[in-house]
Amino acid sequence: MKKILIINGPNLNLLGKREPTIYGNASFEDYLNMLQKRYPQCAIAYYQSNIEGELINKIHEAGFDYDGIILNAGAYTHTSIALLDAIKAVTTPVVEVHISNVHAREPFRHVSMISAGCKGVIIGFGLDSYRLALESFLAEA
Amino acid sequence: MKKILIINGPNLNLLGKREPTIYGNASFEDYLNMLQKRYPQCAIAYYQSNIEGELINKIHEAGFDYDGIILNAGAYTHTSIALLDAIKAVTTPVVEVHISNVHAREPFRHVSMISAGCKGVIIGFGLDSYRLALESFLAEA
Amino acid sequence: MKKILIINGPNLNLLGKREPTIYGNASFEDYLNMLQKRYPQCAIAYYQSNIEGELINKIHEAGFDYDGIILNAGAYTHTSIALLDAIKAVTTPVVEVHISNVHAREPFRHVSMISAGCKGVIIGFGLDSYRLALESFLAEA
Amino acid sequence: MKKILIINGPNLNLLGKREPTIYGNASFEDYLNMLQKRYPQCAIAYYQSNIEGELINKIHEAGFDYDGIILNAGAYTHTSIALLDAIKAVTTPVVEVHISNVHAREPFRHVSMISAGCKGVIIGFGLDSYRLALESFLAEA
Amino acid sequence: MKKILIINGPNLNLLGKREPTIYGNASFEDYLNMLQKRYPQCAIAYYQSNIEGELINKIHEAGFDYDGIILNAGAYTHTSIALLDAIKAVTTPVVEVHISNVHAREPFRHVSMISAGCKGVIIGFGLDSYRLALESFLAEA
Amino acid sequence: MKKILIINGPNLNLLGKREPTIYGNASFEDYLNMLQKRYPQCAIAYYQSNIEGELINKIHEAGFDYDGIILNAGAYTHTSIALLDAIKAVTTPVVEVHISNVHAREPFRHVSMISAGCKGVIIGFGLDSYRLALESFLAEA
Amino acid sequence: MKKILIINGPNLNLLGKREPTIYGNASFEDYLNMLQKRYPQCAIAYYQSNIEGELINKIHEAGFDYDGIILNAGAYTHTSIALLDAIKAVTTPVVEVHISNVHAREPFRHVSMISAGCKGVIIGFGLDSYRLALESFLAEA
Amino acid sequence: MKKILIINGPNLNLLGKREPTIYGNASFEDYLNMLQKRYPQCAIAYYQSNIEGELINKIHEAGFDYDGIILNAGAYTHTSIALLDAIKAVTTPVVEVHISNVHAREPFRHVSMISAGCKGVIIGFGLDSYRLALESFLAEA
Amino acid sequence: MKKILIINGPNLNLLGKREPTIYGNASFEDYLNMLQKRYPQCAIAYYQSNIEGELINKIHEAGFDYDGIILNAGAYTHTSIALLDAIKAVTTPVVEVHISNVHAREPFRHVSMISAGCKGVIIGFGLDSYRLALESFLAEA
Amino acid sequence: MKKILIINGPNLNLLGKREPTIYGNASFEDYLNMLQKRYPQCAIAYYQSNIEGELINKIHEAGFDYDGIILNAGAYTHTSIALLDAIKAVTTPVVEVHISNVHAREPFRHVSMISAGCKGVIIGFGLDSYRLALESFLAEA
Amino acid sequence: MKKILIINGPNLNLLGKREPTIYGNASFEDYLNMLQKRYPQCAIAYYQSNIEGELINKIHEAGFDYDGIILNAGAYTHTSIALLDAIKAVTTPVVEVHISNVHAREPFRHVSMISAGCKGVIIGFGLDSYRLALESFLAEA
Amino acid sequence: MKKILIINGPNLNLLGKREPTIYGNASFEDYLNMLQKRYPQCAIAYYQSNIEGELINKIHEAGFDYDGIILNAGAYTHTSIALLDAIKAVTTPVVEVHISNVHAREPFRHVSMISAGCKGVIIGFGLDSYRLALESFLAEA
Repeated sequence: MKKILIINGPNLNLLGKREPTIYGNASFEDYLNMLQKRYPQCAIAYYQSNIEGELINKIHEAGFDYDGIILNAGAYTHTSIALLDAIKAVTTPVVEVHISNVHAREPFRHVSMISAGCKGVIIGFGLDSYRLALESFLAEA
Repeated sequence: MKKILIINGPNLNLLGKREPTIYGNASFEDYLNMLQKRYPQCAIAYYQSNIEGELINKIHEAGFDYDGIILNAGAYTHTSIALLDAIKAVTTPVVEVHISNVHAREPFRHVSMISAGCKGVIIGFGLDSYRLALESFLAEA
Repeated sequence: MKKILIINGPNLNLLGKREPTIYGNASFEDYLNMLQKRYPQCAIAYYQSNIEGELINKIHEAGFDYDGIILNAGAYTHTSIALLDAIKAVTTPVVEVHISNVHAREPFRHVSMISAGCKGVIIGFGLDSYRLALESFLAEA
Repeated sequence: MKKILIINGPNLNLLGKREPTIYGNASFEDYLNMLQKRYPQCAIAYYQSNIEGELINKIHEAGFDYDGIILNAGAYTHTSIALLDAIKAVTTPVVEVHISNVHAREPFRHVSMISAGCKGVIIGFGLDSYRLALESFLAEA
Repeated sequence: MKKILIINGPNLNLLGKREPTIYGNASFEDYLNMLQKRYPQCAIAYYQSNIEGELINKIHEAGFDYDGIILNAGAYTHTSIALLDAIKAVTTPVVEVHISNVHAREPFRHVSMISAGCKGVIIGFGLDSYRLALESFLAEA
Repeated sequence: MKKILIINGPNLNLLGKREPTIYGNASFEDYLNMLQKRYPQCAIAYYQSNIEGELINKIHEAGFDYDGIILNAGAYTHTSIALLDAIKAVTTPVVEVHISNVHAREPFRHVSMISAGCKGVIIGFGLDSYRLALESFLAEA
Repeated sequence: MKKILIINGPNLNLLGKREPTIYGNASFEDYLNMLQKRYPQCAIAYYQSNIEGELINKIHEAGFDYDGIILNAGAYTHTSIALLDAIKAVTTPVVEVHISNVHAREPFRHVSMISAGCKGVIIGFGLDSYRLALESFLAEA
Repeated sequence: MKKILIINGPNLNLLGKREPTIYGNASFEDYLNMLQKRYPQCAIAYYQSNIEGELINKIHEAGFDYDGIILNAGAYTHTSIALLDAIKAVTTPVVEVHISNVHAREPFRHVSMISAGCKGVIIGFGLDSYRLALESFLAEA
Repeated sequence: MKKILIINGPNLNLLGKREPTIYGNASFEDYLNMLQKRYPQCAIAYYQSNIEGELINKIHEAGFDYDGIILNAGAYTHTSIALLDAIKAVTTPVVEVHISNVHAREPFRHVSMISAGCKGVIIGFGLDSYRLALESFLAEA
Repeated sequence: MKKILIINGPNLNLLGKREPTIYGNASFEDYLNMLQKRYPQCAIAYYQSNIEGELINKIHEAGFDYDGIILNAGAYTHTSIALLDAIKAVTTPVVEVHISNVHAREPFRHVSMISAGCKGVIIGFGLDSYRLALESFLAEA
Repeated sequence: MKKILIINGPNLNLLGKREPTIYGNASFEDYLNMLQKRYPQCAIAYYQSNIEGELINKIHEAGFDYDGIILNAGAYTHTSIALLDAIKAVTTPVVEVHISNVHAREPFRHVSMISAGCKGVIIGFGLDSYRLALESFLAEA
Repeated sequence: MKKILIINGPNLNLLGKREPTIYGNASFEDYLNMLQKRYPQCAIAYYQSNIEGELINKIHEAGFDYDGIILNAGAYTHTSIALLDAIKAVTTPVVEVHISNVHAREPFRHVSMISAGCKGVIIGFGLDSYRLALESFLAEA
C-alpha cells in the first residue's frame, strides 16, 4: 500500500470560501474524502499550513519515508527558494499541483521557483489536479 | 461600534528601539493607547508577528468579521504574494500603511505586492499613518 | 488658521464625467464645498490645470507660504521628474493623493516619480483621499 | 455632415520646414485645404499646439461633441499617459496617426502610450495618413 | 488596373467563427466580395495560409509584380523576422493590417517584427482596416 | 465514446531515437498502442508534424468536434503565439503536455506561450504525461 | 556680433532659492549680468519657462535665426522626446548644459533624451557651465 | 568520398535578387556549381525551404547518414528553438553559416538560438562562408 | 568571554543528509562540538529554524546582548528583506556565512538581500566558513 | 601658473588617422601645440596610453599635485570602474572630455562609468572639448 | 606573399595546459609550426599578450600594413569596446576566432563586443578555427 | 611551510591614502609586516599592479606552484572575465577578498565576475579580510 502525503500551502485552508470564481466552492476536506474512497490502495495523509517553514518541516518529516508528496505550495510557489531546497533535500518524489491555471492569471504567478526540483507539475484542472498527481504515483508500480 | 484590527508585521515589535532616525522612538503600545482613547467609538484590537504565515492566519481569523483591518506588513510588503492572496480571500477591507516614506528609501522598498488587493494605501506619515487609516474606515458610515 | 492648497492635475477637471466606474460620478467642486464646510479651521484653496508646467508654477507660487499642498498629479505622477523637482524645491510639505487604487490598474500606473519628494502618499479612497490628506496636516499641530 | 477635428502635437507646426527627408516638404495648411475640398461632406476643423496640456484641453473640449478626432500627438505619443487618459475620458472616437513609419526609426519611437485608448492607428503613409483616418470615420455610416 | 494581393496569416481562416467578441462574426470571403465590388478599378487577389513559410513563398511570388500587398500576418507579426526579411526582399510595397487594436490586448501583441519593413501600418478598424490599406495604394496614382 | 486527439509537434517523431537521456528510448507508436488498449472507452487519434502551421491546421480541423486535444507542441511551446491563438479559437479543450521537466532545463524552456489558452498543463512524467492528460478528460464525465 | 539665446527649463526660475547644496545660491539673473559684461561681443538673450511646450515654441522661434542656443532643459532633459525633435528641427546649433553633475545623482538623471540632437553637452561646472557653452560658440569663428 | 548537405533557410532562394548591398548579386546555384567543381572529393547536396518545419524534416532525413550539414537558417537562426532541437537530435555535425556579418546589423540578429547545438559557426565571409564550412569537414579526415 | 550565536536557517537541519555533493556529509552538531572545544574562550550558542519569522525573533532576542551573530540564512538569504531589517535593527554585528560557493550555483543564489546589513560575508569554505566568521569576531579584541 | 595634465586613453594615439569622419583629421600633437601657445598661463603636460592600468598609474602620479586633469578615457569610459576609483582616490579634480558626441553613436557609448567621480563632463565639441575643459580650470581662480 | 598576423589574447599562453577538456592539450606553438608549413605562401607572424592595451598596440602597429589579422581576443571579446575601436581604426581586415563554441558555455560568453568591427567570425572548430580564418584571407586573391 | 601569495589589484597601492572613510588609513605594507610576523609558518609573498593583464600574468606564474592565492582584484572584480579565466586555468586555489562591504556600496559593486572560479569569498572585514583568507588555507592541513 502506497503512502502519499498531500501538502497544501497558504490560503488553501479557505478553499470553498475564497474567491470561488477562481478556486470553486468545494471544501478540500470533502474532496479528500472522495479521493480516499476512490483510491483504497493508497494511504493518503493530509497537511496544511500557512507558514512556509512549517511546510518545509513537513517535507523533511515525510520526505525520506513516504512514496510520494503532492504539493500545492500556493503563493509560496512563486517566491520560495527554501521550499525548492527542501524538495531537493529529500528522497521522496514531489509533484507540484495547482488548482487554477496560473498561466492565465497575473504575470507573477507564471513563475515557479519549485518546479525544477519536482518530479512533475500539474496545473489547472481544479481539484482534479490532485487526483492526476495521485495517478502519477500509481503509474510507477 | 466598529471593530478594527491593526496588524503589524516583521520587526515592528522593535518600534521605538529600531533605527529611530527612520521609525521614530515612540513604542507602538503607547501610540495604540492614545488612539484607543481618541477614538472611543471604535474597538481597536492589535496583533503583531514576525512570521508571515501567522499574519495570514490572523487575516483569515478576523477577515470575515471585523469592519476593517489596518495592515503594516513591514518588509513582507515587498515580497509576499501569499499575503496578497489572504487579503483578497477575506471580505473585510484592508488598508495598507507604512510609517516611513518607502519611496524615499532603497528601490526594493518601492514595490508593494499587496497594494493591488487593498482598499487603499497610506504611506509616510509616521505613526499618524495608522490614524489616517482608521479615519478612512470611519468615513464610510 | 491653516492654509491648504489642493492641486489637481490632468483630466481631473472631468471628474464626475470621466470613466465613472473608476473615478465615481461626483464632481470635484461639490466635494470641495463639503470639505470646506466640514473643516472650517482650514482655508482650502483649489487649483486645476492640464498643463504640467502650470502645476509647477502653482507649486512654486504657494510652496513657500502655504501650510500644506495636497497634490493629485494624475497621469503626470508616473512620468514627471519636473514635478518631483518642484516639490523638492519648495518648503511647504506636499501630500500625494490618488482617487483610484493605481496599484490595481495598468503596470505603468504602479510607478510614481514624485512620491520620493512628498511628505506622504494616500491612494485609493475615492474622493475621501483628499480629506485624509487634509487630516494629515491637522495632525501636526 | 460629420464633424471631424484634426489635432497636431509638438513640432508639427514646422511641417514642410523640419527634417524634410523624414516628413516631406509640404506644409500642413496646404494639405488641409486639399482635404477639405476633397471631402465636402465633412466639416474638418484643425488645431495645433506644442503644449501637452493644451492638447488635452482640446480633446476635452471637442471630445463629447465631434464625430471623430484625428490625433498626431508627435513625440508625446511615446511618453504621455495624460493624453491616453484624455482619450479614454471622452466619448468621441480618436484615431492615432503618424506621418513617418515610426517603427523604422529609433527604438523609443516604437512604443505608443496612447494606442490602447484609440479606435485605431494609422502609421507611415506620409500626409495621406490623415486622409485614411478620415476615411475610417466615413466608413462608419 | 492595379493588382493588389491580400495575404492573411495564421488563424484568420476562422474569421467569423473565432473569438467573435474580438474579431467580429463576418467571414472574410463575404467581406472580400464586397471589397471587390466597391473597388472595380483594382484586381484584388487573396491568399491565406497558417504556415509561415508559405506566406513567405507568396510574398516572393507576388512581390516583384503586384502593385501592393496587404498583409495581416496574424500572430506571426509578433515573432517572425523571416517575414520581415521577405517583405524587405521584394519590391512591391507591403501594408501591415490588423483587425483588432493589438495595443489594447496582451503585451506580446504590442510588438511587431515586420512594421519596420512595411510601407505603412493600419490597426484596429475591424475588417475596414483592409479597405483603408487598399485606399492607401489608390492614393498613390 | 470520447474522441481524443493527441498532437505531437517538432522533433517528437524522433522519440526513442533523440537524446534518450532526456526523452527515454521508447517510440511513441508503441506507447500509443498501449494507451489505446488500456483505455478502450476512448477513440484516440494521433497526429505529428514538424510544421507549426500544420499543427494549427490540425487544431482547427479537430477543434470543433473532438472531446479533447492533448498537445505536446515541443519547442513551439516556447515561441508560438499562433498556436495560442489556434487553441483559443476552437471549442475543444486542449491540455498541454511535456515529457521532460522543462523547468529543469534551459531558461528558454521555462516559458510557455500556449499555457494561458489551455485547460491545463502536465509536465515531466515521461510518456505518462499523455496518460494523465487523457485521465483529465475522463474525469469530466 | 553673435546672437546667443540661453533657455532655462523647469524649476530653474528658483535658482538661488532651491536646494542650494545642489544648485548654489546665486540667482540666475545676477549671473547673466556678469556674463553679458564679460562677453560684450555677444548679444545674449534669456528665456525661462516651466512649460515644456513653451520651451519648444522658443526653440522654433529662435532656431532659424540665432547663432547658438544654450539649453538647460532641467528635468525635461530626461523625459522629453518632443524637445529632441524641436532641437533637430531647427538649424541653430544647441548646446545642452547642466549646473550639477547629473551623473552623481539619481539614476533617472543619468539619461538624456536630448543629447543626441545637440552639438555638444556640458555638465557639472555650476553656473560656469553656461559660460563654457558660450565659449564653444565663440570658438567657431 | 564525404557526403555533405547544404541547407538554406528562408529568403535565401532570392540570393542575387534580394538586398544586393547586403547579400551580393550572385545566385546560390552558380556558387554551388563552382563549389562542387573545386571540391570533387565531396558529394555536395543542396536543399532550400522557407518553411521551418521542412528544414527540420531535412535535418532528420540527412542527420544520421551524412558526414556534415552546412546550415544557413536565415532569420530562423534568431528565433527557432525547434531547429536547435533538430540539430541536437541528429548525429551528423552541423555547421552554422551566415553570409553577412549579422553582428553589424540590427540587434535582433545578434542572437542565435541554434549556435549552442552546432559544431561551429562561420559568419560574414559572403558566399565564401559556405566554403570555409566545407573546409572544416575536410579538416577532420 | 565572548558570547557568539550561530543561527542556521532553512534546510540546514538536514546537513550531512541533504545533497552531500554540495554540502558535505558531516552533521552540524558534530562540527559545533569541535568548534566549541577549539575556541574555549568563546561561549558559542546555536539555533536553527526553518521559519523565517523565528529567525527574526532570535535575532531580536540575541541582538542587543551577544557579541556576535553568525548567520547562515540558507535560501532566505536571496529573498528576505525582513531578515535584512532585523539585522539592521539590532546592535550586535552579524556575519553572513555560506557553506557552498553560492556564486558557482544557480543565478538566483548569486543575490543576497542581507549582505548590505551585515558586518561581513564569508562564502564557500564548507563548514570552515563558520570558524572563519568566529575568527572575525575574535580579531576585534 | 596652473599645472594641467591632459590624459588620452585607448586609440587616441591614432587621431588624424582613425575614422576621420568621426574624429577629424588633425593630429593631437598639433592641437596641443596650439593650446599651449594660446594659454601661456598654464603648464600643460600630456600623456597617452592604450593600457587601462597605465592610465590609472598616471592619475595616481599626478593626482595629488596637479591643479587639474583633463581625461579622455576613450572606450574605457564605458567599462572601467577601476578608472572611476582612481579618479575618486586622488585630490586633483578631473574633467571628462569626449571629441565626438557619444550620445549620437551606439548605445553602449551612452553610458559613462567615470562621470560620477568627475568634476564635470564636456562632450562633442571636437578637439575644442579639451580647450573648454581647460577654461573650466581657469574659471576657478 | 601575404602577410598575416595571429594575435592571441588573455590566458591563451596557457593552451595545452589550461582546462584541456575545453581547449584541448596541444600547445599553440606546435600548431603554429604546422600551419606555417602547410601554408608556405603566407608569412604568418604571431603575438600573444594578456594585457588589453598591448593587444591594441599590436593592432595599431600591424593594422596599416598586414594583409590580415586573425584575432582570438579571449575573454576581452566579451567586454572590450577599446578593442572594437582599434579594429575599426585600422585598415587591415580582422577575423575574430574562438577555439571553443562560446555559445555552448556561460551566457556572458555569448556576447561579443568586437564582432561588429570584424570582417568575419569563426567559432568552435578547436585550433582549426585559425586555419579557416587563414583560408578566408587566401580566398580573396 | 605553506607558500601563499597576496595579489592586490587596481588602486590598492593607495591604501591609507585613498578614501579613508571606506578603506581605512593603514598602508598595506604595515599590515603585511604584521601578518608575516603573526603567521611564521607561512611564506607570504605580495604583488600589486593596476594593470589587469599583469594580474593575469602573476596568477599564471604562481598558480601551479603556490599553496594559495589571496586576490583582491579591486574594481576588476566586477568586470573582468579574463581574470576569471586565469583563476580557472591554474591549479592553486584562489580566495577572493574585499576590504569594504561591497554590497553596501553602489549596485555595480554587488556583482563579481570572479567568484564562481574561486575557492571562497571574504568580504567586508577591513584588512582583517586578508588574515581570514590566510586562515582558510591553514585550515586545510
